Amino acid sequence: MTFVLDHLGIAVKSLAAAKSVYEKLGLTVSPEENVEQENVRLVMVPIGETRLELLEPTSDDSVIGRFIAKRGEGLHHISLRVPDLNAAVQRLKSEGVRLVSNEIKVGAGGHRYIFLHPSSTGGVLLELVESAH
Amino acid sequence: MTFVLDHLGIAVKSLAAAKSVYEKLGLTVSPEENVEQENVRLVMVPIGETRLELLEPTSDDSVIGRFIAKRGEGLHHISLRVPDLNAAVQRLKSEGVRLVSNEIKVGAGGHRYIFLHPSSTGGVLLELVESAH
Repeated sequence: MTFVLDHLGIAVKSLAAAKSVYEKLGLTVSPEENVEQENVRLVMVPIGETRLELLEPTSDDSVIGRFIAKRGEGLHHISLRVPDLNAAVQRLKSEGVRLVSNEIKVGAGGHRYIFLHPSSTGGVLLELVESAH
Repeated sequence: MTFVLDHLGIAVKSLAAAKSVYEKLGLTVSPEENVEQENVRLVMVPIGETRLELLEPTSDDSVIGRFIAKRGEGLHHISLRVPDLNAAVQRLKSEGVRLVSNEIKVGAGGHRYIFLHPSSTGGVLLELVESAH
């Protein structure tokens, strides 16, 4: 089984400020992208086979906006690509691992994902996404 | 220039509890290791070319112990491997990026590292380590 760290989602107040340090290091930063249904603007910073996803809320009343209001800027989630999401979820449920919601969801691009609750992972919101077949 | 995400350092209260979710997913978890000078016990969880580093404090009066007391469990730092640490640090300083300390330090295994201040990176404590030559 092959696992890959797909991306790290980082909640930031200002994309312009947060991305500049990575540009100064010589990393490539993607153009800004608006994701309306999540109320965020984002850029991706590829690092080897993984990516940093910098997320700026476009509304205070959004998941990322509320996160920053409560916790400040910083890591929001870690996303792990798994080969068989159904099997992984079944195994975790049978072992009593707590999930944020019990159903696998389907994202905008058709990818399937689920979130594990931070209480099961050492305080980290862990997203599992399915590898493309 | 090649950058690699070397590891994610995650502060946890209990290694036993935090590592079990990764074992249940089918990931390999290294044996526990004691790092006396840092007052932590740790395990590594390799994921593709990067690793999660789970850090349990062995003393409340340690960097990780104080972090958990203040912020709770969760991501402590992101470590980025850079090809030329001197050049990277010089460039960041000339651009006004804030560092935790101005001097490159040398770790136990002889690797050279420096930390960037979270105020420069969107709330993430970013470690730069030099690639082995």
